[in-house]
Amino acid sequence: MKAIKKVVLAYSGGLDTSVIAKWLEDTYECEVVTFTADLGQGEEVEPARVKAQALGIKEIYIEDLREEFVRDFVFPMFRANTVYESEYLLGTSIARPLISKRLIEIANETGADAISHGATGKGNDQVRFELGAYALKPGVQVIAPWREWDLNSREKLLNYCDQHGIEVERKKGKSPYSMDANLLHISYEGGILENPWTEAEDDMWRWTVSPEQAPDKATYLDLTYEKGDIVAINGETMTPATVLEYLNKVGGENGVGRLDIVENRYVGMKSRGCYETPGGSIMLKAHRAIESITLDREVAHLKDELMPRYAKLIYNGYWWSPEREMLQKMIDESQQHVNGIVRVKLYKGNIIVVGRQSDDTLFDEAVATFEEDAGAYNQGDAEGFIKLNALRLRIAADKGRNL
Amino acid sequence: MKAIKKVVLAYSGGLDTSVIAKWLEDTYECEVVTFTADLGQGEEVEPARVKAQALGIKEIYIEDLREEFVRDFVFPMFRANTVYESEYLLGTSIARPLISKRLIEIANETGADAISHGATGKGNDQVRFELGAYALKPGVQVIAPWREWDLNSREKLLNYCDQHGIEVERKKGKSPYSMDANLLHISYEGGILENPWTEAEDDMWRWTVSPEQAPDKATYLDLTYEKGDIVAINGETMTPATVLEYLNKVGGENGVGRLDIVENRYVGMKSRGCYETPGGSIMLKAHRAIESITLDREVAHLKDELMPRYAKLIYNGYWWSPEREMLQKMIDESQQHVNGIVRVKLYKGNIIVVGRQSDDTLFDEAVATFEEDAGAYNQGDAEGFIKLNALRLRIAADKGRNL
Amino acid sequence: MKAIKKVVLAYSGGLDTSVIAKWLEDTYECEVVTFTADLGQGEEVEPARVKAQALGIKEIYIEDLREEFVRDFVFPMFRANTVYESEYLLGTSIARPLISKRLIEIANETGADAISHGATGKGNDQVRFELGAYALKPGVQVIAPWREWDLNSREKLLNYCDQHGIEVERKKGKSPYSMDANLLHISYEGGILENPWTEAEDDMWRWTVSPEQAPDKATYLDLTYEKGDIVAINGETMTPATVLEYLNKVGGENGVGRLDIVENRYVGMKSRGCYETPGGSIMLKAHRAIESITLDREVAHLKDELMPRYAKLIYNGYWWSPEREMLQKMIDESQQHVNGIVRVKLYKGNIIVVGRQSDDTLFDEAVATFEEDAGAYNQGDAEGFIKLNALRLRIAADKGRNL
Amino acid sequence: MKAIKKVVLAYSGGLDTSVIAKWLEDTYECEVVTFTADLGQGEEVEPARVKAQALGIKEIYIEDLREEFVRDFVFPMFRANTVYESEYLLGTSIARPLISKRLIEIANETGADAISHGATGKGNDQVRFELGAYALKPGVQVIAPWREWDLNSREKLLNYCDQHGIEVERKKGKSPYSMDANLLHISYEGGILENPWTEAEDDMWRWTVSPEQAPDKATYLDLTYEKGDIVAINGETMTPATVLEYLNKVGGENGVGRLDIVENRYVGMKSRGCYETPGGSIMLKAHRAIESITLDREVAHLKDELMPRYAKLIYNGYWWSPEREMLQKMIDESQQHVNGIVRVKLYKGNIIVVGRQSDDTLFDEAVATFEEDAGAYNQGDAEGFIKLNALRLRIAADKGRNL
Repeated sequence: MKAIKKVVLAYSGGLDTSVIAKWLEDTYECEVVTFTADLGQGEEVEPARVKAQALGIKEIYIEDLREEFVRDFVFPMFRANTVYESEYLLGTSIARPLISKRLIEIANETGADAISHGATGKGNDQVRFELGAYALKPGVQVIAPWREWDLNSREKLLNYCDQHGIEVERKKGKSPYSMDANLLHISYEGGILENPWTEAEDDMWRWTVSPEQAPDKATYLDLTYEKGDIVAINGETMTPATVLEYLNKVGGENGVGRLDIVENRYVGMKSRGCYETPGGSIMLKAHRAIESITLDREVAHLKDELMPRYAKLIYNGYWWSPEREMLQKMIDESQQHVNGIVRVKLYKGNIIVVGRQSDDTLFDEAVATFEEDAGAYNQGDAEGFIKLNALRLRIAADKGRNL
Repeated sequence: MKAIKKVVLAYSGGLDTSVIAKWLEDTYECEVVTFTADLGQGEEVEPARVKAQALGIKEIYIEDLREEFVRDFVFPMFRANTVYESEYLLGTSIARPLISKRLIEIANETGADAISHGATGKGNDQVRFELGAYALKPGVQVIAPWREWDLNSREKLLNYCDQHGIEVERKKGKSPYSMDANLLHISYEGGILENPWTEAEDDMWRWTVSPEQAPDKATYLDLTYEKGDIVAINGETMTPATVLEYLNKVGGENGVGRLDIVENRYVGMKSRGCYETPGGSIMLKAHRAIESITLDREVAHLKDELMPRYAKLIYNGYWWSPEREMLQKMIDESQQHVNGIVRVKLYKGNIIVVGRQSDDTLFDEAVATFEEDAGAYNQGDAEGFIKLNALRLRIAADKGRNL
Repeated sequence: MKAIKKVVLAYSGGLDTSVIAKWLEDTYECEVVTFTADLGQGEEVEPARVKAQALGIKEIYIEDLREEFVRDFVFPMFRANTVYESEYLLGTSIARPLISKRLIEIANETGADAISHGATGKGNDQVRFELGAYALKPGVQVIAPWREWDLNSREKLLNYCDQHGIEVERKKGKSPYSMDANLLHISYEGGILENPWTEAEDDMWRWTVSPEQAPDKATYLDLTYEKGDIVAINGETMTPATVLEYLNKVGGENGVGRLDIVENRYVGMKSRGCYETPGGSIMLKAHRAIESITLDREVAHLKDELMPRYAKLIYNGYWWSPEREMLQKMIDESQQHVNGIVRVKLYKGNIIVVGRQSDDTLFDEAVATFEEDAGAYNQGDAEGFIKLNALRLRIAADKGRNL
Repeated sequence: MKAIKKVVLAYSGGLDTSVIAKWLEDTYECEVVTFTADLGQGEEVEPARVKAQALGIKEIYIEDLREEFVRDFVFPMFRANTVYESEYLLGTSIARPLISKRLIEIANETGADAISHGATGKGNDQVRFELGAYALKPGVQVIAPWREWDLNSREKLLNYCDQHGIEVERKKGKSPYSMDANLLHISYEGGILENPWTEAEDDMWRWTVSPEQAPDKATYLDLTYEKGDIVAINGETMTPATVLEYLNKVGGENGVGRLDIVENRYVGMKSRGCYETPGGSIMLKAHRAIESITLDREVAHLKDELMPRYAKLIYNGYWWSPEREMLQKMIDESQQHVNGIVRVKLYKGNIIVVGRQSDDTLFDEAVATFEEDAGAYNQGDAEGFIKLNALRLRIAADKGRNL
């Protein structure tokens, strides 16, 4: 067993991480520092202080990281129109690197030699937490209790609480799903979802109404972009976190942003997940629209071709890596002219782009028009363009190659 | 001017191509063969025979190509989850190579030395028609009247008809849009759409009701896949064209498949287009879902990364090229196990996947479960997995590199 | 500890694997089957039989796999011009999947439930052996003694031999390098090479003379290709293994094929390696040359862009994977017309292509000539080609974008 | 015909561009400004002044651009290990964007509305010149006489000189090749090279001796890198152009850098070219070596996979494009730590890397060693690493998928 003096624990205040706090002290005979972050998960974080104190924790960190989360993680990711496996908006993945960063910073501040988290040994989150930690502090020790202990059921955890005097709320009607939430999304796994043929129950969803229950009247939004990020909604300037909160609210009311998929985990298995990402879904659609008039074609295509790789990096936990930073440099460079306004219409689950405008538009009405263009474009040029693009095909056919 | 003896014209029976038929005879003093295909555009093709006869055409080809179109072009394309610039389902692009192929085959049958079409010099279609033609018959002459003549307005075309005794219907209330339709989609360009900030008018759309007007009750569909293609709907076996017709009908009734984008043309300008692709939109979503449980992760990711390139090939007109065929070989190889059933729910513009099952599933409930897994997965393996994946990052950090 | 009944061991007859054979019996109380393959490493394999018998092994497999190795592994890999990190020809990597395959087949024949190998826990080979084994027989047990035991030095291994009555040759002047050889190459690692600044000693190299010592007169070879593989040299038809043996001999005499690099291992560290690949180096250069006149440009470029990924798959041990097979399908498809003759000149370390010809050439002298081309190419087409390719750049510049 | 007032001509002082100067004046009745640049082609540029004056040119620009050429074009390109079609070092391609830039700058200074060049309508250079020009000055007129006039032979050009009183040297024994030279390379096309089976004649090569004629004794060089560029040779600090001149000289003496290939032109045909790139060949090899110890693995692989696309951009003439700039940003970002020294050995055509060292090395001897590593690496981690990487393969095999 590793010799540990002090460990920083990513602490939610819930059953699992409360047990972990105690178990770490007992097992490693070490001090425990708790770190609780408000990433917009929708629950108060302050109660975690009392719970930590009740566990005898002396160093307690509780922080509101919402603005940093959206500004430095969510927004940069959306500049690439990032989607994992064509569907998943990476709501869980993108929160992990920020937590890793703060865990390591707190370890450095408090002189801790280890970090710990409550992620299981089957999932992606352990990888994301730990890759980030190792990248930022290569000698750090990582304790992942779920990979070590035998408390592998809710019943055993509750017994452990009884034996060690840990007070926890024993909620009736606890959600049958494994959930994770932050400003970008809420996720559901497990329970009946483990059969990919079973439709998700409607009462599972928490942030969005169903399209059926959404209002009969559409909502229109004008989203103002600067360098690829939304800076104002309906003309009102907002901070990054406020933008996302606003879009989550309006999106959720209109039933947009639900997703039900089977995805491929980095650790090797397929898993079913349901996600609500109302604000993110709007942002993705709108960002593509503002890029459609402001990005050069080849720049856009290069971004498109690299996006799956960038998404995979984030999904797999490589936010803190030189290859992600290299790609980010390129992505950010591409956003210099991604300015303007996109108008979207939300209606019962639909996100519909109905207009886009920009002082930096590359849409040239004089050239594009079906009407007389006064010489802006010489149609005769097309013949040579086609002829030379066809040349290699013609030579091959001449030489007897058949398609 | 090229010396032409006989030319095969892609003939719709409408104003433009009727003028072209006459203009070709007059300008090149050559025979004209007309070719009219039913690709599911929703209009009768047989009337084109009478119109061609009225123009004095002696060799008239009228063909129903719907099954070939869907079986050999649309379905292979959908195996790759093909989308151009993240949005466009390539409805126009995918019809052109079939027309090129038939034009050339008819040229060979009739001894023609040229082909002609009614596409303008500003668009992508001229490129698609001509690249295909040159690839299949390298010595063919291509006549693109819109790049040559000065009949560059509707008024001039009508005058030409009057002068040359061509009978055409002079519809009142002709659509202000440039449209194209086939079984996969109908497209709209021009008119008020030339301003990307202007919302499309609701009466423009022809195949779909708006989400607002769609039924209040959802429609569920079970789609059965074999090797990546839909072979049955709700348990009933159907031919490829019937599948697409059925999905278009049900999709259109439920308001799904509308799209409004600004895209980048191969000839270099941005253009606004609106598209209705009800069946295709369902097929895309469902195909991703059946792949999500039957494709290996790395196979799926490789397909995802190559898809934009494959889409670009089709968009730009390179269906008939060795690189498309090479990619197709790989894509088709990947579909051997893409079998099973996807259940989708259609509701007011939404296409929601609610279930997927397959005898070829790679989803392993024993491994994926959040419950006790009886040793199917050893959580301890994750530590080594993470440690070695982190090794390069730890070494770099140890050597003083900062992220 | 795993319960093992019978294990198939990749057995060379040398010190390490002899100790492993004994250690497996003692540690797991299981039967051991030995498998020794001739892959062209240049040593007799038959002596391994006597050594295995001396260890009391009852099931002994000794096989000449040279033709299978070159035909089914080396040649398919060279069709892609495969090079890892721009330099390494994958000589070790490509031999592992064949060994994995035979280990598993023998396990199935002999009813063994495990396999074992002598690769260390730091290298790539363990990964290659084991990924292949798991992919071909998912329930197989793998025993990697170097990751388990404490016999981590040559001295301890020799002591173990003394204690257990294993006879081994105690060579004086044993090579200070860790080496691996097969028909494609011989590799050197360790010793003074562990300092990347230190030049390799000339007496390390075994298959090639130095350029300095090579003949003063060049050697010319005519290599005949069919579907991307060499089938004859100087007009004489040869089997795959014979082709490679011949090229190794001639190449080695002319001092070609030495390589000294630092590479990135899959397990996360950089390592220095020296390689001799005389035949492979000639094959790479010549294959590129025959492709240069027989492959379509876009096919060639697509292959080039995917090659690093294909190389990485093989380097990392994913030969037996659906993604490698999918890529192989595409690569093989591209080779249908890669037929013809390449003439190379070997001189003191240089491999110089001096001629290439093919009935399937796409080189069109009439079009390519600097002389009068009698209308084969219309220079005027270039204007339209350039104008439309420039259109997006001109629009951007017109709108004030600066490069 | 375009109405032109003043045209800036890329003027070499040779026959072709002297005729062009006169022909432009006569044909377009416009003023001609000549621009002659020293890019290290090895010929004096000052004589062009007298020749231009003799033609009556009033505005004559003669400039030494060698440092700018190497610093801002060659070096940035080499940071990406750029090679077109695995072989060609882009010596011609990389000089064109600098000439385009100066042509346009001079047009702006002199109030010219057009540029002109002496490239033919079959090659890549016309594309490179003109794409650059249009990107930098979208309204510029471009005159490419070879695409317009009928002076399509040397004889006709000489007759034109006689008729118009242009004095040109009528060299006996003019090279039968079409050549281009600058500090990076000299190229040969045409003549007997138009048959790809014909070996180049030894007296064609100008910058390098043959390997046979090179010294019997090797030359060693120590190349010092800073941020991916060579800043010193054998400890002596040098400017970019001096670095390349030095390497050309030493490389040429040792017979390195000859290349004989068939390449695919952007305009659609294959062409045979021979190139001498002594300094560039050394730079490529050495740069890969310094990167091998200083670049992260994933950064290196990402660069490798994008390199063919970057090379194609430059080859095709898109240096002045937003996509090239976006890629450059990423490439330059990757070079922050590419510092250190590479030792190369030159011997009779061979460029052999024999050592590399760096304060920024990521080579970790403690981890990499074959000896006892004192715990720097835990071999047991490999088991979990392999097991999870194999998981998807094992599940597939368990479900009956065969490889």
